[in-house]
Amino acid sequence: MNEAQRPRGQEQDTRFTALLEALRANAAQRDLAGGHAAAEKQCIADAGLLTLAVPREFGGQFGKDGVRWSDIYATIRALARVDSALAHLLGFQCLQVASVELWGNAAQRRNWLQGTAESRWWWGNAVNPIDTRLVAQPDKEGGWRLHGKKGFCSGTYGSQMMTVSAHDPATGSPVFAVVPTTRAGITVHDDWDPIGQRQTDSGTVSFENVAVRAAEVLQRPDTPRATLRTLVSQGVLTNLFVGLAEGALEEARAYVLANARPWVNSGVQHVADDPFLQQRFGEMRVQSLAAAVLADRAGALLDAAWDEGDALNTATRAEVSLAISEAKIVAHRAALQGGEQLFEACGARATGAALALDRFWRNARVHTLHDPLDYRLRDVGRFTLLREVPQPTLYT
Amino acid sequence: MNEAQRPRGQEQDTRFTALLEALRANAAQRDLAGGHAAAEKQCIADAGLLTLAVPREFGGQFGKDGVRWSDIYATIRALARVDSALAHLLGFQCLQVASVELWGNAAQRRNWLQGTAESRWWWGNAVNPIDTRLVAQPDKEGGWRLHGKKGFCSGTYGSQMMTVSAHDPATGSPVFAVVPTTRAGITVHDDWDPIGQRQTDSGTVSFENVAVRAAEVLQRPDTPRATLRTLVSQGVLTNLFVGLAEGALEEARAYVLANARPWVNSGVQHVADDPFLQQRFGEMRVQSLAAAVLADRAGALLDAAWDEGDALNTATRAEVSLAISEAKIVAHRAALQGGEQLFEACGARATGAALALDRFWRNARVHTLHDPLDYRLRDVGRFTLLREVPQPTLYT
Amino acid sequence: MNEAQRPRGQEQDTRFTALLEALRANAAQRDLAGGHAAAEKQCIADAGLLTLAVPREFGGQFGKDGVRWSDIYATIRALARVDSALAHLLGFQCLQVASVELWGNAAQRRNWLQGTAESRWWWGNAVNPIDTRLVAQPDKEGGWRLHGKKGFCSGTYGSQMMTVSAHDPATGSPVFAVVPTTRAGITVHDDWDPIGQRQTDSGTVSFENVAVRAAEVLQRPDTPRATLRTLVSQGVLTNLFVGLAEGALEEARAYVLANARPWVNSGVQHVADDPFLQQRFGEMRVQSLAAAVLADRAGALLDAAWDEGDALNTATRAEVSLAISEAKIVAHRAALQGGEQLFEACGARATGAALALDRFWRNARVHTLHDPLDYRLRDVGRFTLLREVPQPTLYT
Amino acid sequence: MNEAQRPRGQEQDTRFTALLEALRANAAQRDLAGGHAAAEKQCIADAGLLTLAVPREFGGQFGKDGVRWSDIYATIRALARVDSALAHLLGFQCLQVASVELWGNAAQRRNWLQGTAESRWWWGNAVNPIDTRLVAQPDKEGGWRLHGKKGFCSGTYGSQMMTVSAHDPATGSPVFAVVPTTRAGITVHDDWDPIGQRQTDSGTVSFENVAVRAAEVLQRPDTPRATLRTLVSQGVLTNLFVGLAEGALEEARAYVLANARPWVNSGVQHVADDPFLQQRFGEMRVQSLAAAVLADRAGALLDAAWDEGDALNTATRAEVSLAISEAKIVAHRAALQGGEQLFEACGARATGAALALDRFWRNARVHTLHDPLDYRLRDVGRFTLLREVPQPTLYT
Repeated sequence: MNEAQRPRGQEQDTRFTALLEALRANAAQRDLAGGHAAAEKQCIADAGLLTLAVPREFGGQFGKDGVRWSDIYATIRALARVDSALAHLLGFQCLQVASVELWGNAAQRRNWLQGTAESRWWWGNAVNPIDTRLVAQPDKEGGWRLHGKKGFCSGTYGSQMMTVSAHDPATGSPVFAVVPTTRAGITVHDDWDPIGQRQTDSGTVSFENVAVRAAEVLQRPDTPRATLRTLVSQGVLTNLFVGLAEGALEEARAYVLANARPWVNSGVQHVADDPFLQQRFGEMRVQSLAAAVLADRAGALLDAAWDEGDALNTATRAEVSLAISEAKIVAHRAALQGGEQLFEACGARATGAALALDRFWRNARVHTLHDPLDYRLRDVGRFTLLREVPQPTLYT
Repeated sequence: MNEAQRPRGQEQDTRFTALLEALRANAAQRDLAGGHAAAEKQCIADAGLLTLAVPREFGGQFGKDGVRWSDIYATIRALARVDSALAHLLGFQCLQVASVELWGNAAQRRNWLQGTAESRWWWGNAVNPIDTRLVAQPDKEGGWRLHGKKGFCSGTYGSQMMTVSAHDPATGSPVFAVVPTTRAGITVHDDWDPIGQRQTDSGTVSFENVAVRAAEVLQRPDTPRATLRTLVSQGVLTNLFVGLAEGALEEARAYVLANARPWVNSGVQHVADDPFLQQRFGEMRVQSLAAAVLADRAGALLDAAWDEGDALNTATRAEVSLAISEAKIVAHRAALQGGEQLFEACGARATGAALALDRFWRNARVHTLHDPLDYRLRDVGRFTLLREVPQPTLYT
Repeated sequence: MNEAQRPRGQEQDTRFTALLEALRANAAQRDLAGGHAAAEKQCIADAGLLTLAVPREFGGQFGKDGVRWSDIYATIRALARVDSALAHLLGFQCLQVASVELWGNAAQRRNWLQGTAESRWWWGNAVNPIDTRLVAQPDKEGGWRLHGKKGFCSGTYGSQMMTVSAHDPATGSPVFAVVPTTRAGITVHDDWDPIGQRQTDSGTVSFENVAVRAAEVLQRPDTPRATLRTLVSQGVLTNLFVGLAEGALEEARAYVLANARPWVNSGVQHVADDPFLQQRFGEMRVQSLAAAVLADRAGALLDAAWDEGDALNTATRAEVSLAISEAKIVAHRAALQGGEQLFEACGARATGAALALDRFWRNARVHTLHDPLDYRLRDVGRFTLLREVPQPTLYT
Repeated sequence: MNEAQRPRGQEQDTRFTALLEALRANAAQRDLAGGHAAAEKQCIADAGLLTLAVPREFGGQFGKDGVRWSDIYATIRALARVDSALAHLLGFQCLQVASVELWGNAAQRRNWLQGTAESRWWWGNAVNPIDTRLVAQPDKEGGWRLHGKKGFCSGTYGSQMMTVSAHDPATGSPVFAVVPTTRAGITVHDDWDPIGQRQTDSGTVSFENVAVRAAEVLQRPDTPRATLRTLVSQGVLTNLFVGLAEGALEEARAYVLANARPWVNSGVQHVADDPFLQQRFGEMRVQSLAAAVLADRAGALLDAAWDEGDALNTATRAEVSLAISEAKIVAHRAALQGGEQLFEACGARATGAALALDRFWRNARVHTLHDPLDYRLRDVGRFTLLREVPQPTLYT
């Protein structure tokens, strides 16, 4: 019942199932190899997933009884069960599209969202709120020149478009913009080499005197709705963790049924009769399920908040924010525990490097460090104790 | 958003709120005193809660867009936040009513359910599946004579009617029946004196040659639907645990805001600014919330299964059973942890006996021993691993 | 191998064993009754335990190849297995004796320590560092007058002597003194009524113009050695937690072997063959054992530091302090978990109020709130990270 | 105070410290590369560690006030802090030497132990009790011919000597022997490629008609002492886990002090002032310390049991076995948790693949699967509950 419930046709379903199988087939190999998954990104595009967040009016699938955020999250979760790196790429594709929808003016929305639908652009993310090494200097036409570097730019490698934030020293505030990845002066470095989430193309992008036209600047409105970008993003991470927990459980089950043997002192004939193994699968199930239902709840609240449009108020926004934090805390732990317990279930022979079954833990470990769990717990606790609505920040 | 969502009118809401306040006001005292809460049971009856599970056709509130199981569970949860012993009594009231609905023939349902609505009967439970000390001997008119004892008979003290199970030595199977509590030969002992759940009137009932007429015997149908009784019961326990976890959190919050002072070495001026305290409230919140959403999910599945009536099949029944087990595991832990962490939040001065703040832990501790957590985990794990549908048992 | 290893003769051993049996026999009843355990305190005195910390030169048992702190802790631990309230009384008896030894001048030590040996005084503790309601005003002879109240005064009820701290408004510092409990103006209130540790006589003491002579004032030296009082005290608490964890395990074992039956769906004939029960006993054992060995390590370090006398330096003192904190953190958790898991092991029938098996959890819960776990963890972490030696405080 | 306390001279200490520094310097690179660490194994040999377990009478360092098992374990632990794969190799070197000491006759001991001292042999382990693919057929001279394969043969690659066990179909019992690695018919495969413990050379060894002479067969005595081999081996694993937990903590500390920055919403200026970070370091410290002291306790018991020689009885042997199991359970968890929490402490930037900081978790994960934790807990619990001494098995 955790299956992706996207409102799509039969043909689309078939393609999605085929995509999942294809990704699963070489997920271990690609994890070991790292780098850019060009062929698999093409499969994602071919499965029609790039326009999930593009409104129907611009040729996409989102809204008016079409796709909602909860559907997108279900898709990300399903992908993350087999490949959380590519799930992240798709999630951030949707996030950049949402950024244009939330922060763009009418012309920007039409141009870039229609463009996404027509040209099947992949979007990259050079909006990293903490990293202030990228500086924006105003030019004479109301545009800017960008100089510097940005790290953790998920999806920029291989993208056609990107969102970018740069530090304006005059105001101390960030400048947000959209530029084509091929814009002169932009260099996307293939320098992403982490211990997990190895194919998210989250390397460094350097900018040498890169022109940003006035029409490319996003004017973030000062409304609760505009701050939904952060929540969309946190929801992507949360569902990715849920998918990792579920994927670890699925892999553990498949491995045990295919390979595992009863422990020599267990007294059972068939490994599946081992009481401790059953107990462990019970634990993994309730952990991943708790994460899933909390993520579902948060997704439904985001859908409702999104539907309110500009009428969205601070209190409702805060409710969504807390729901996502609550889900993320549980999902964070479920993903790490799932990746670890997988091995208790499968035993010593499952540690062969070629199986790369440790990728669930490594992927979870890398992605759960996006922002610290303790501060998220603190914010939830502060609200629980004081009913103090958390201020919209870059993370909550 | 975890508030009881019963479809009731304004007047009923007001009475329910008043009931909660009244119960909370003397919950600590009554916990210390133990024994029978006659006045508070009367308040529950006066609030119109005895007929929650009685179908509308018999003068009650259940079904056909009226009350559903998820509504009853929300009510139990709300009660359990302030008094989990009385919440149990109400839950088991609904359970006995459901037993008649599920296992009774048309005449029995009409008599006993209408009677409940008209006479506001409290029902007791002498159906304890493991205890076989109560023996049934057939009489000549198709009825039975009961001899022996039954323990843990929640709600029988002070009840007007009771369900009972007795061991038939000839077949080894249980005989189920409904009898008035005043039936000759029945003695309800006021011997319930446990460390928690002290006012559930769960003492011993002894039967000396008690007549059970043929018309009083419940013929449990051999259908998936008939086995829903167990799930209704397990759902009561689960929501009671959720309420305990939520109640512990609410009490902790109230106490901290009213009384707590910052720790001498904390470096903060106001206790509410203590980072570890905020973290702890965050933990308590996510634990109780995870339990609540899993219980909500299970309740919704039970509602749907109930609506299927006799068409309910084994697979759907099993799905509900697993959902309840999954929720119960998480709620079990949340209730115990909430009862324990309450004190870390409140500090040493909260340990005064008159406050009886340990009642949350003691209530949780007693009630979570109804059946062992490990075997529930095992069953969930076995299904997760093997897709083996658990057989309906007395507990799952 | 966790047995008390006090260097004592055969006769003393026999008395100690008899004491443990006597305390265990009515521990549940006394927990329910609360109040003052006059008869049992007499048994402790008769067993020769009041002079454990009194140096041999003054007629006691401590030092020069006699009793050491690790021996006293082993005794406290053994007592706490059967009765942690009385273990606390004995521990605080030794603590007050140590206070005189550490802070008294030659005459004070001789008078009060010899007095303890000769008259078998019980000592009470009115040194509560946070509570500043008790005020000291200087008199003309270099003594003080005390006015006000002190809470949590363990052991004062029924004592002959007490240590006391009072707030000197002129300096903001505490005045420490020793006074007989019968001194005019002192009223020991029998108002201690908590949820656990019910017989520690830790009520309020009020002081109305109580005279303290100059010769009764303790001049706490400004040396690392003088700060050992805090560590002696924290070691008492730590070993009390260890004893609670071990006692819960012992009671669980005794109950299971005597009463428990296999779970209906377990598939085992004898409860002791239940794999989950075995697993649980394994958990309880490793938890209590880890606490015990860490407490042993801390005790040995305290012994060594004590032996250094006035030569003790800050670094060595800090090492002992950290060792005690480390042990206390693990013991805190083991005690609470032991008290909770006891019931998972024993099952529903173990919840009868008369058994009072919840006293292990309640005792642990009350006593572990003496100072917050989180701040102790923080101090250990700060040292681990920064090698910053914690400053001697009232708690570390 | 967890430092290796081997009774060695100044020169040896200097070499050992230099060894640790050398191993740490390229541990990350070697983890990524995997394969055979020829140069580092040479450094270990040069540091004089190959003869730690060789009795002094045969030119080694063990016994008669020289090295004891607790010293060897301290050495393994120190190595494991920086490189748990090489620590395993050294541990298994000592294990094979111990096998000869325990199971060899006088001539065998003299030949092979003296040979180890004189020729600085590395020993490999082809004794894998579960794997029965290697078959022994008797020849006419009282020797055997070996046919088949053996997996997980730690240290055989690059060794000069090996112990081997083979399945004798006639009796169903294993044949144990010592053979030179160069013996005709033996092929050591370089096929060890796991996710952790990547340089333990634990690949497959195949045997094609390999001759084993009668004089090479080890006759395992039927004495408690002979079963100490298993405990020596389990002690190696336990101390390796302890070293991993300590190493993860050390690396986390070094990284945080050198690189970490305060979280954007933390409100602290210096990362080291972050209360949650301090709390986390506190947790990591108490976890690794609890593991260390339990391992120390087990080591001391093994030393004493070893000293009893052939007089060792079953009860004492069982006590050591339980102590090692208890330590191993706690160390198992400390190693995994340390490897995971390291990253919470260090943050996202610590996930670069080149740092390979995930090696602590991966090494712990691989090595903790040697035998299942749950069965070890069960055995401890069974003893705790029933005082049933565990039978010596291949794992306990």
